[in-house]
Amino acid sequence: MSITARQIVLAQHPHGMPTDEDLPLREKTLDAPAQGEVLVRVIYLSLDPYMRGRMSQAKSYAAGVEIGQPITAESICEVADSKADGLSKGDIVLARTGWVDHAVIRGEDCRKIDPSLAPISTHLGVMGMPGFTAWVGLIVHGKVKSGDRVCVSSAAGAVGQIVGQIAKAKGATAIGIAGGPEKCQEVEETFGFDACVDYKTGDFKSSLESAAGDGFDIYFENVGGDVLFKVLPLMKEFGRVPLCGMIAWYNLTSAPEGPDMAPQIWRNILSKKLTVRGFINYDDIEHHDAFLQDMSGWLKDGTVKYREDIRDGLENAPAYFRDLLSGGNRGKMVVKVGEDPTE
Amino acid sequence: MSITARQIVLAQHPHGMPTDEDLPLREKTLDAPAQGEVLVRVIYLSLDPYMRGRMSQAKSYAAGVEIGQPITAESICEVADSKADGLSKGDIVLARTGWVDHAVIRGEDCRKIDPSLAPISTHLGVMGMPGFTAWVGLIVHGKVKSGDRVCVSSAAGAVGQIVGQIAKAKGATAIGIAGGPEKCQEVEETFGFDACVDYKTGDFKSSLESAAGDGFDIYFENVGGDVLFKVLPLMKEFGRVPLCGMIAWYNLTSAPEGPDMAPQIWRNILSKKLTVRGFINYDDIEHHDAFLQDMSGWLKDGTVKYREDIRDGLENAPAYFRDLLSGGNRGKMVVKVGEDPTE
Repeated sequence: MSITARQIVLAQHPHGMPTDEDLPLREKTLDAPAQGEVLVRVIYLSLDPYMRGRMSQAKSYAAGVEIGQPITAESICEVADSKADGLSKGDIVLARTGWVDHAVIRGEDCRKIDPSLAPISTHLGVMGMPGFTAWVGLIVHGKVKSGDRVCVSSAAGAVGQIVGQIAKAKGATAIGIAGGPEKCQEVEETFGFDACVDYKTGDFKSSLESAAGDGFDIYFENVGGDVLFKVLPLMKEFGRVPLCGMIAWYNLTSAPEGPDMAPQIWRNILSKKLTVRGFINYDDIEHHDAFLQDMSGWLKDGTVKYREDIRDGLENAPAYFRDLLSGGNRGKMVVKVGEDPTE
Repeated sequence: MSITARQIVLAQHPHGMPTDEDLPLREKTLDAPAQGEVLVRVIYLSLDPYMRGRMSQAKSYAAGVEIGQPITAESICEVADSKADGLSKGDIVLARTGWVDHAVIRGEDCRKIDPSLAPISTHLGVMGMPGFTAWVGLIVHGKVKSGDRVCVSSAAGAVGQIVGQIAKAKGATAIGIAGGPEKCQEVEETFGFDACVDYKTGDFKSSLESAAGDGFDIYFENVGGDVLFKVLPLMKEFGRVPLCGMIAWYNLTSAPEGPDMAPQIWRNILSKKLTVRGFINYDDIEHHDAFLQDMSGWLKDGTVKYREDIRDGLENAPAYFRDLLSGGNRGKMVVKVGEDPTE
């Protein structure tokens, strides 16, 4: 038995926006799975901005896609044939197949998904890495409790929007920071934060001070930069700062010009007796089941809202990806590649 | 019954080194203790550099001594008369009497000392605040365990020298950082650290890298500045940074010139998943009894060494204080004001 897979491959490195010529559809005959492997049929494919970097020759922390190979991606799949222990035909799994409709992969690289918890596509978003990152940072490292005042930067982002909603679910007050009135409105109205402060306005500092009230118990840190310098002085004693990202500083190749803000950061941590904890969610995998149970419950009772932008057809993935890069999506961008048996 | 107390008072604000004219001996008649008060007889007086600041008119975080009043100090005393619950004649207590030989103070401002734990003078040093700060930072916030590699800045200081010795007692490796060959030698030979690196030498960075081996599990931070920037990149994943002080940055009145080192600090915390915890020991008072038991045992079996420089006579306190400011002491400077009944 052999299967012909459809794949979107990297034919050449794009200049600027990737074209259909850069990312053509090819067919490839797959071998039947060997011992330890599974054949999977892709149902949902995740499209994310980081994939643009993988299409380039530029050096990055992750290896780029080789010419002729499918573009990297996480996907939700159905097992079509299994030679791997613990996986059976019909199982729904999360895997890294790339932009394809079928793949043969190692069973140990699949994570089985329980379709009763939530719609299976959500395991690419709110039930997946962004959701788990928000949950671990706020609950394990932030130790959120009822009555806390929680500040979240990049509040309209995939992680930030969930942080505020978990804070609310835990009885805390959620204050977001985002750029521009549209994002702030979405954070307040769609995701139900108590307030969202626009860091692009001239009165950011005073608006943030008002929103801080008598101080923040938790600052869920995604950005670094000027936002960090403005938030730290507003922390309460014994506050917690789960440090998840520093978008403003990722592209630095050397220390920026002064003044040197290191002493101010250190003084705030010392005088307010803060706990700052850097984290990357996959270090906390022992909490993953607890996360899935929590988030499944919150999705079912409507406590946590999420937005997906699900579009049809692997062959259109390059066009959808261009739309994503242009900001044309409304919510998590997902490509439906094949029939969803759970619908 | 009335008592005449001898006091060293602030007659005028000193210019530079305090003179005997700035700090004369005066007598004062004390009233008998009222309800809730005790009359104490001072046995040992602590002399510390911070007292120079209290003699000045310059603004500081603590109020200065008023003209005509005794100089601030902690002391070990014997209760001579008590109208306070829980305190009896003959009890040994820690109190803030100032530079005096007798005082009437509130009973609630005394902390009773158990003379069986250690020589009572040590409650001004290794059994007192410096010891407790070291213990809390390393054990409660640093979570030290056997096999850890611990780095301590200001290692010859009152706190730092104890940190390294507790680390050794817990089965960890102790690496000190200090300024100059004499201090480094004392840290290694007297206090038994595994190594002490001199930050004043040109090869500080490479010496520290050698001493770090495969990385530090704990950095007990007392200094900030360049030492901090050199240590952070040498931390192991999931390392802990109890943040106790930042000597290098205390006198800053505004952010120093660049480059801005804040992004480097943040990147190290994030990429190494560090926990940085600011602390001030009196927030952790629930651990105080456990500390006293630990330290008493270590002093009795010789695990922890300490040095005291005990000198005689309240009337000579100004001369001893000048010696302290000139670095003429060898160990914790203590003035013996009256007979020690436990000797």
